[in-house]
Amino acid sequence: MSQCAVSFDGSEPINVAAGTLLTDAAVEAGVFIAQPCGGQGRCGRCAVQVIDGAVRRRSTMRLSAEDVDAGYALGCQTVIEGDTRVVVPEQETLERRLTSDRLVAEVKVPDGYDWRKDQSLQRVLLVIEPPTMDDQRDDWSRLEGAIIKATNLERVTTTLPVLREMGAVLRDDQWRATALLNIDLSDSTPRNAVLVSLMPGHVPESDPLWGICVDIGTTTVSVWLVNLITGQVVSQSAEYNRQASRGEDVISRVIYSNKPSGRAELRELVLTSINTLIQRVCDKASRPQDNNGQANQRHNVHCSPRDIVKATIAGNSIMTHLLLGIGAESIRQSPFVTALNQPPMLSGSEVGLDICPQAPVDCLPGVASYVGSDITAGVRSSGLGEAEPLSLFLDIGTNGELVLGGKEWLVTCACSAGPAFEGGGVRDGMRATQGAVEEVWIDGRTFEPTLRVIGNRKPRGLCGSGLITLLAELFLTGIIDKGGHFNRNLKTDRVRQRNNNWEYVVAWGNESWHGEDIAITRVDIDNLIRAKAALYAGITVLAESVGLALPDIEQVLIGGAFGKYINVEKAVQIGLLPDMPWEEFQFLGNTAILGAYYALLRRSDRQRIAEIASRMTYIELSADNAFYEAFTSALFLPHTDIALFPSVAGQMETLFKQPNS
Amino acid sequence: MSQCAVSFDGSEPINVAAGTLLTDAAVEAGVFIAQPCGGQGRCGRCAVQVIDGAVRRRSTMRLSAEDVDAGYALGCQTVIEGDTRVVVPEQETLERRLTSDRLVAEVKVPDGYDWRKDQSLQRVLLVIEPPTMDDQRDDWSRLEGAIIKATNLERVTTTLPVLREMGAVLRDDQWRATALLNIDLSDSTPRNAVLVSLMPGHVPESDPLWGICVDIGTTTVSVWLVNLITGQVVSQSAEYNRQASRGEDVISRVIYSNKPSGRAELRELVLTSINTLIQRVCDKASRPQDNNGQANQRHNVHCSPRDIVKATIAGNSIMTHLLLGIGAESIRQSPFVTALNQPPMLSGSEVGLDICPQAPVDCLPGVASYVGSDITAGVRSSGLGEAEPLSLFLDIGTNGELVLGGKEWLVTCACSAGPAFEGGGVRDGMRATQGAVEEVWIDGRTFEPTLRVIGNRKPRGLCGSGLITLLAELFLTGIIDKGGHFNRNLKTDRVRQRNNNWEYVVAWGNESWHGEDIAITRVDIDNLIRAKAALYAGITVLAESVGLALPDIEQVLIGGAFGKYINVEKAVQIGLLPDMPWEEFQFLGNTAILGAYYALLRRSDRQRIAEIASRMTYIELSADNAFYEAFTSALFLPHTDIALFPSVAGQMETLFKQPNS
Repeated sequence: MSQCAVSFDGSEPINVAAGTLLTDAAVEAGVFIAQPCGGQGRCGRCAVQVIDGAVRRRSTMRLSAEDVDAGYALGCQTVIEGDTRVVVPEQETLERRLTSDRLVAEVKVPDGYDWRKDQSLQRVLLVIEPPTMDDQRDDWSRLEGAIIKATNLERVTTTLPVLREMGAVLRDDQWRATALLNIDLSDSTPRNAVLVSLMPGHVPESDPLWGICVDIGTTTVSVWLVNLITGQVVSQSAEYNRQASRGEDVISRVIYSNKPSGRAELRELVLTSINTLIQRVCDKASRPQDNNGQANQRHNVHCSPRDIVKATIAGNSIMTHLLLGIGAESIRQSPFVTALNQPPMLSGSEVGLDICPQAPVDCLPGVASYVGSDITAGVRSSGLGEAEPLSLFLDIGTNGELVLGGKEWLVTCACSAGPAFEGGGVRDGMRATQGAVEEVWIDGRTFEPTLRVIGNRKPRGLCGSGLITLLAELFLTGIIDKGGHFNRNLKTDRVRQRNNNWEYVVAWGNESWHGEDIAITRVDIDNLIRAKAALYAGITVLAESVGLALPDIEQVLIGGAFGKYINVEKAVQIGLLPDMPWEEFQFLGNTAILGAYYALLRRSDRQRIAEIASRMTYIELSADNAFYEAFTSALFLPHTDIALFPSVAGQMETLFKQPNS
Repeated sequence: MSQCAVSFDGSEPINVAAGTLLTDAAVEAGVFIAQPCGGQGRCGRCAVQVIDGAVRRRSTMRLSAEDVDAGYALGCQTVIEGDTRVVVPEQETLERRLTSDRLVAEVKVPDGYDWRKDQSLQRVLLVIEPPTMDDQRDDWSRLEGAIIKATNLERVTTTLPVLREMGAVLRDDQWRATALLNIDLSDSTPRNAVLVSLMPGHVPESDPLWGICVDIGTTTVSVWLVNLITGQVVSQSAEYNRQASRGEDVISRVIYSNKPSGRAELRELVLTSINTLIQRVCDKASRPQDNNGQANQRHNVHCSPRDIVKATIAGNSIMTHLLLGIGAESIRQSPFVTALNQPPMLSGSEVGLDICPQAPVDCLPGVASYVGSDITAGVRSSGLGEAEPLSLFLDIGTNGELVLGGKEWLVTCACSAGPAFEGGGVRDGMRATQGAVEEVWIDGRTFEPTLRVIGNRKPRGLCGSGLITLLAELFLTGIIDKGGHFNRNLKTDRVRQRNNNWEYVVAWGNESWHGEDIAITRVDIDNLIRAKAALYAGITVLAESVGLALPDIEQVLIGGAFGKYINVEKAVQIGLLPDMPWEEFQFLGNTAILGAYYALLRRSDRQRIAEIASRMTYIELSADNAFYEAFTSALFLPHTDIALFPSVAGQMETLFKQPNS
């Protein structure tokens, strides 16, 4: 088969066989092209510009004749037939660069953290009797005996890589050595441990011991580098999950994983994301001029990926399955079960992480197909599991995961809100990156909008928080009614019909980045209403399942990256969040990685996450008639029963009176 | 760096960088060239003929000017500088072909073997409740529960490869599946097990379950393929340990393993030997026309390497260390300790065997640096550990390993006999292959020899059994005295001086394969006497260490390949074996692999081997004055103290009188 040289964005060309898909070549070249629909040619997001070369388009769905004339082609539907030069639209490359900048969290070391008491990893300094002609015991018996004597453990095991170098390490500093042990947590009193690594001599007490915590989001992967001795987060980094090039939501990932070698490919992609971030957090930590806190100015640290000796990983169940290369097909088909909720303790090499090969890798326990360890870890870090007041924990993304309860009991459910709040399923939707409209105000008399755009530039589209405020403003100004229907009698050219679809123009072509009008359509509004209705119905059913009503909820804890940018007032106005005083809402940011961080540091936190997982009662909504009824009732703005939203009812009165006053 | 095409024996050339050593290129090409000295250019055994091409000889030690003119070069001292064609002398290739033919053992399945009771592997047929919307437990909880219910185990764990396919396997035959469990032997009642593999549906009871046992000898590697259900050995194969190309004895291997990447290379070489044999035993078993017993005619078996789900491995301690890639340097330096005597239970993929990656691989426990699992397994299969009479177990090779005792106690030691009995350290010595003189009779009047040659061809050299009979005959005919000195006054031109060295000519040039005289020299005789003295002194000291004398020994059990071909009468005549009635000697063949076979089949045997290892008292001879004295006394034929050899004394009288009668 003949070879073709393909270059992306002017970089060094790579060689691929003729007949290779453009998106496959991009993966080969390490170039990110989004494929929200999983390569089915439906979404049009993978369009790239072929500026030179020979390609064959199998489909041009979603491309105009002008697009095709300008060289645009759908990456997932176009095969390479000769040497080719490709330009990836700025949007995609921009997005990639942006993620990691936006997600730096301030992290407080848990009060009273003491690695000697709290860590499952223990660093033990050993002085070992050297062998003599009268005592010819083997090295391992000698080492094992010294460890047991120093620790009161009953049994120590180890791995082949440690045994391979053991003899040389023990003799390197005359039988003085430092053992790094990982204590088995299944017993309440430590009895068994694994010798993770062995170093010659006595490592100084203050020397850092490196761990990482990881959150694998469907969209974003985050890694924190932690000094386990001090508990400090020394550096952080995040990037888009490279699996997104093979499907934007979890379901399209599962579908892709069923293609031949799809599962292996998805595993490789997320490993590449994680391993790239691991290298990046190590580089950041080791270059003091690059840091963004005081953390690593205090000591001149050096950390390379192989120095990392422990990892905890949180993620939704599908992300965890795909990371471990475990078949996830059963998750998307009734009765929706996982292969496993509690992965065994694994090692760096088994998982494929570029860290110490024997490092324990702890994929935290989840609960069900759509309630993974991102939620159990999130519940831990949010404090919900120990809370006195009745609390609701929300993690809003493509799926909304909900947990209700406190220290006595916990119930949980997941509702498939769809990608609307992430800008998906909305014509001019986009992620919350440069050029996204993140807030909208509409004048109740002129119906003219005022926009706030991320990066203060010309708008490119609407992100989740922008859509929520837009929907609220459209409703409160009467542009749409409570069913989401446009009022066709208003004196404004912003409400118009185009392609048999009513819409409201948010920005005219001469104001926008790409010269096209940016609008929200009737179909978009339906999608948003369905999304918010699913979430609200989930909350309702969850409360009902334990015999409570929404007013009983005393606080709402909101996790997830999206939660950070949400406007509560607007979210209540559209009926996405229950109508409660603002001070009862708390925005916690990435609760999943914070929980993984606690589990990385403290045995007690790791055990509590396991307890949380085991005491959560999972309510399956897809089989629940009550959910369907609650969903139907919520398909209005803010709700069929306006009495549930007293503050909104008040605002509506005020607003609708205003024009006449 | 420029590339050179190198062809061995007319085969397809391989490409190597200019500057590559010929021996390295041979390894690359999969061609076996012996390197007894470990590539130091001292032994000359790696000489090959360069028939065409550009090479540079760094050294020509041991080659004559004529050899060099004829293109001969030392493989380990010659670098390739251009395209080259090489011929490997017939001797080497012949040897390789021969090994596997000679070592087919008849094996009896242990009486009353019942895999259900005896095996650590258990095949369990499961019928599992399928998940429903009311029971959404994850697959693993469901499977684990079903296994525990079916087996009364307390805990089951598994590995990532099994988890990866679990979901699909469980659904393949509607939640009927067959679990293969490996039960942890550390508890007396089975409590914990590892799920090794999971198959869809119910595997028929009579379907074979495949295991292998392996003996890694310094010289020869043997593999048996066993149907664990019936216990039958279905096929066997053996070949030279490919590590031999990097040093013939264990010490030169350890030295080689300290070179850069030497350890990895030795590991690869022995793995290649084992994996080649695994493929071969599978091929043999699967082709009924190829079999050499009735075993596989009865059922039409098919076995591929990946179907092998269990392995046991016996070997001396250095072979075990090198197989696992564990540093072995401490073994050869005082105080001579191993890294570990009891490797943990490993998996096929960890060890690098081409079998089921999760298959348990059990490297059997050894005792000390020079008493490995080949001896503990050998003691088990020889029955010594359960014997009532006081018994001596001998495994004679480069090292002689000795065990004395019975069911009450066991003492063991190793004596470095050197390679003389394997044809090493003897000028015209060779291995027991085609053309080796394996028995010699000398006429007491004419001093003319009669030879028996392996393969009935012209002699090429002297192998171990030939050397023993030759030494005995030289002594009994008075050609040499009890100190090994030649009688220079005999009327025969076979005793002569050449190169300042006295020698006896065994075959004249016109009778030999290569046209050169074959002789045994004074230096050779000294080496042989030292070797037999070391072994005999070992036996003496071992007996003395427990307050016994040699006459107390009631039976001698001889293991190892060499033992099969030894002539007891002659071995006693030179003082190699103690003077005992012949019926008290038993030749057991490869006791190591037989012990590994028992351990493969029966938990009880595996446990007994561990008990044997733990109750053997190891006597270190290198630090023992008594050994040195016993060795010095044994440096005569048969011994300083002829009273220890009454039968030989009688023979000497008869023989020395005969010429005069």
